[in-house]
Amino acid sequence: MSRTEGREDPVTALLEAVRRQVEPDRSGTVAGYIPQLAQAPPDRLGLAAATVDGALYGAGDDTLTFTIQSISKPLVYGLALEDRGVEEVMARVGVEPTGEAFNSIRLTPERGTPFNPMVNAGAIATTGLVRGDTPAERLERVRQMLGRYVGHEVEVDGAVRDGERETGHRNRAIAHLLRNSGVIEGDPEAVLDVYFAQCAALVTCRDLAVIGATLANRGVNPLTGVRALAEPLVGTVLSVMTMCGMYDQAGRWVVEVGLPAKSGVAGGVLAVLPGQLGIGTFSPRLDEHGNSVRGMLACRRISSGAELHLLDPPNAARETVRRRYRCSARRSRHRRDAPAMALLGRIGDRIRVYELQGELMFAGAEAVTGAVLADSDGASAVILDVRRLGPVNAAGARMMGLMAESLQEQDTPVIVAPEGTHPGLADALAVRGVAWPTGFPSVDEALKWCEDRLLAGAGALVPVEDEVPLGRSELGEGLTPGETRRLEAVVDRLDLAAGDVLYRAGDPPDALFGVAAGEVALVAGVEAEKRVRIAAATPGTLLGEASFVDGRPYGTDAVAVTPVRVWRLTRAALEEIPDEEGRLIRTRVLLNIARSLADRLRQAAQEIGALS
Amino acid sequence: MSRTEGREDPVTALLEAVRRQVEPDRSGTVAGYIPQLAQAPPDRLGLAAATVDGALYGAGDDTLTFTIQSISKPLVYGLALEDRGVEEVMARVGVEPTGEAFNSIRLTPERGTPFNPMVNAGAIATTGLVRGDTPAERLERVRQMLGRYVGHEVEVDGAVRDGERETGHRNRAIAHLLRNSGVIEGDPEAVLDVYFAQCAALVTCRDLAVIGATLANRGVNPLTGVRALAEPLVGTVLSVMTMCGMYDQAGRWVVEVGLPAKSGVAGGVLAVLPGQLGIGTFSPRLDEHGNSVRGMLACRRISSGAELHLLDPPNAARETVRRRYRCSARRSRHRRDAPAMALLGRIGDRIRVYELQGELMFAGAEAVTGAVLADSDGASAVILDVRRLGPVNAAGARMMGLMAESLQEQDTPVIVAPEGTHPGLADALAVRGVAWPTGFPSVDEALKWCEDRLLAGAGALVPVEDEVPLGRSELGEGLTPGETRRLEAVVDRLDLAAGDVLYRAGDPPDALFGVAAGEVALVAGVEAEKRVRIAAATPGTLLGEASFVDGRPYGTDAVAVTPVRVWRLTRAALEEIPDEEGRLIRTRVLLNIARSLADRLRQAAQEIGALS
Repeated sequence: MSRTEGREDPVTALLEAVRRQVEPDRSGTVAGYIPQLAQAPPDRLGLAAATVDGALYGAGDDTLTFTIQSISKPLVYGLALEDRGVEEVMARVGVEPTGEAFNSIRLTPERGTPFNPMVNAGAIATTGLVRGDTPAERLERVRQMLGRYVGHEVEVDGAVRDGERETGHRNRAIAHLLRNSGVIEGDPEAVLDVYFAQCAALVTCRDLAVIGATLANRGVNPLTGVRALAEPLVGTVLSVMTMCGMYDQAGRWVVEVGLPAKSGVAGGVLAVLPGQLGIGTFSPRLDEHGNSVRGMLACRRISSGAELHLLDPPNAARETVRRRYRCSARRSRHRRDAPAMALLGRIGDRIRVYELQGELMFAGAEAVTGAVLADSDGASAVILDVRRLGPVNAAGARMMGLMAESLQEQDTPVIVAPEGTHPGLADALAVRGVAWPTGFPSVDEALKWCEDRLLAGAGALVPVEDEVPLGRSELGEGLTPGETRRLEAVVDRLDLAAGDVLYRAGDPPDALFGVAAGEVALVAGVEAEKRVRIAAATPGTLLGEASFVDGRPYGTDAVAVTPVRVWRLTRAALEEIPDEEGRLIRTRVLLNIARSLADRLRQAAQEIGALS
Repeated sequence: MSRTEGREDPVTALLEAVRRQVEPDRSGTVAGYIPQLAQAPPDRLGLAAATVDGALYGAGDDTLTFTIQSISKPLVYGLALEDRGVEEVMARVGVEPTGEAFNSIRLTPERGTPFNPMVNAGAIATTGLVRGDTPAERLERVRQMLGRYVGHEVEVDGAVRDGERETGHRNRAIAHLLRNSGVIEGDPEAVLDVYFAQCAALVTCRDLAVIGATLANRGVNPLTGVRALAEPLVGTVLSVMTMCGMYDQAGRWVVEVGLPAKSGVAGGVLAVLPGQLGIGTFSPRLDEHGNSVRGMLACRRISSGAELHLLDPPNAARETVRRRYRCSARRSRHRRDAPAMALLGRIGDRIRVYELQGELMFAGAEAVTGAVLADSDGASAVILDVRRLGPVNAAGARMMGLMAESLQEQDTPVIVAPEGTHPGLADALAVRGVAWPTGFPSVDEALKWCEDRLLAGAGALVPVEDEVPLGRSELGEGLTPGETRRLEAVVDRLDLAAGDVLYRAGDPPDALFGVAAGEVALVAGVEAEKRVRIAAATPGTLLGEASFVDGRPYGTDAVAVTPVRVWRLTRAALEEIPDEEGRLIRTRVLLNIARSLADRLRQAAQEIGALS
């Protein structure tokens, strides 16, 4: 079904426009070599397109069935490759274009093998390679294979099959020549039985579009998720379609349309844009080469209108590195004390972050390694932010591994965050002898780890177990010693074990917290697998101050990462400090809260700037 | 030069690995039909790769010069297409593969034209089509054209040229046959003079890689930025290389390597991955087809090692829509009063935002239109966030235009933000009769415009010219009428004209501001063309509160968008209100500041969540 039932979408609009453009062309003649084909309705016209993510569009007579004919050839070739392996098939059928017509009887002079599997000689030889003990069993395997491509049971038109069998004298001659040169083993008639039946399989042009989308989708039918062809063989089938699919018009077709394609004598045309979509057309009138006149024209117009030419792609490498920044510009959301923050401001530029996007294939990986290595002097760590990164292939991952190996020599970790979305990439970074983690659940945690490592190297990492005095914390900053003692008297001390929850998102706020010792993580998300660590608070910092001032529920959970000691200050306790001293303390705490909020807002603005 | 001088980068590592793998192969023989070629150092081996963004890598003997030979054929073919147009060239030279050897003398039986421009017959005919009054002028134009491809002057090896001229009897026979059938006009010797010289142009395998990168980059040399071939002809040249570049091995080459390629008898091989990179190799020993043994092997290994097969690309359509959200989840940073914010919380989900990424070609555009149209019921506006969007081709833009047309019928604008980066896309959205802007400088401004339109439609847009009472503003909220009067007495009123600056980023803070009437934009960025509107403040909201509490300089400029009235409250004025009342007002203002900061921090957290 179309994804936009009942609405005029742009793809249907394109198919309709092409349909109207080519519809008036009445040139060509319906195949007449058997009566069953000659009866085809000559003026019917159907167009369809299917994408690799499973959307299907049609226009005109897109649900009319016809026999698949030669469009079965590349599909049966794929089955033969699966059954016999590439070497055995290539030993019997070549892959070279000949510039000759579909029914050429010419074989290679040296060995009597067909030039390629798209001409009848090669296709008959290919059918002979399909495994099965009997012709019926072989045909059933072909029918099952076609069913995986189209996503439903495929029927054979018995009348067309019988018509072909009765009049197929030239094909019979070819089969006997192939038997003569040993390309076919056993009875040629048994092979021809399967061949004539495979050509009479019934499809619609929507089916052809889905077959095309399956080939475009590396062999998996995108509507059903069922694999129709082993992935490593898809490129081979598409290569042969490219070189030989259009017989003696193959060169012109590649120049003008630029899509691997195959036509059938009943009026079908199949075209494929690898990685993107499949196109199917149906129009029975044929040109002198045996190709559907309006089908070819429609493919030409769809290709030029939608700019699908395979050899005319956009630049793929641009902007794989979407942004790069240093930790001096964007720190982790780990709340640290002022001296640590100041030190990070000075030496944080040794931590380099690269935001990747698009696909990480060879060209994209080259762009990344080029950018990272050119700027690796003085780098203490490289973080690859892969949140926007699309597919990574093995070649791309391998290049990242080589880069990590090269940086390992200068003791610079290469880290991927978040981990888990691109396991192949994380594996590739885990080079031999690596002494650090190669992935973190979030960029923020990767930044924190790199900051800790940098601060530890500079001898400036405050151990989280040390307790900060209240008067030097964000909560009590600016108070006189006397005021600090008054505040200490109304503050509760809570000790939490690692894993204990201080408060939960949605809880009404009842107090303001200050971290005296240990580390508290702020965590969002309800479902366990979607929980994200938003920030962390270390000794000396405030917690829950936004809710304390506006009374709105907490936005995150606060969970102890280590054993933690916190100060808890309720509104009532703050109010109960009497006299002028109480007023001064309340004003100072409010100012401390406002400053902490202002500081966090500045950090958030910086992060928004870094993200957008 | 390599981008990573002196460091082992992954691309050089790949080239070195392939060099070591193929180096030991000593099979094949150096071309010996003229003595000048027979003297080539048989065991030299060079490899190079160049990317479409201008990085160049080499290994082995990558700076050794040799004659370009047949690799000139596709390049001269491109020049002939430029000089004569596609139709005239195709009338004289076909584009069909023949499965025959490079020196085949066979012409089409009907018209005596060569089958394709890659066999000698077609190449000689093509050279005859290059414009110029004399052979010297034609050769000079060929030499200039080669210079644009490689990025420097190209010299012709006179000895090789003379050797070819003396022994080129078969080519002479071909030229006379072509003269006989009228494909060549004038003196065949004059054409052959240019042909022999073009084949003797000197290149290195680094040059070949750059030629390949130029073809991969739609005809523009990525190292120099100079165009070598008109963009519409690049696909044609690559098509002919794909179909005919490897002569009678073309099919096998496409199956196994999957890259348009061309070899030369002096030992060079050129291969192209469109949109990504060019490869050049040099190794003089040839197989029986006249192709460099180790060059072919190296291309095979590079293609499989780096997964470059043209017909085996990754899925292109996935994730063009990176994220989608509604304005109820993320509002503009336009500070509005509480009733308007509450209303937007309820009806803001009618504004739909789609973040796009990757390339917007046919398949990507299909994914976008599918997603937008399937969810367009009740949509009041569709914003396309194109900050992460890569190239958009004409087909992609056209489909967006069709979508906009379809949504225009339900009065739903389709808006692109930021505007300017993808002018073709914005143009396509400006469909006939459109009554709204189709682009905004930022997503935030697009959101604001859509919110204003939605609020106006609901009768709830407060005109910016209305003045808010101080007691109902964020500054004076919660004060008693008496306290409000006391505060009013110490507040300055400033009237600004549109365009006036209230403060600049970096200014030390001297006061807190409240907007009484009008709209103030917060703008970041120093250079005029990089200035970004970060947020906007409308009547009733606070300005400059973060700097007011922590004393740090303002982070943005504040600029009046309309005529504006602001309240200005200095720290000194706030301090001078005496007695208990002054203390209560100060505490209340501090709490109001903290609440405003908490509110903005929550919005920032939401935006960070939306962005990441």
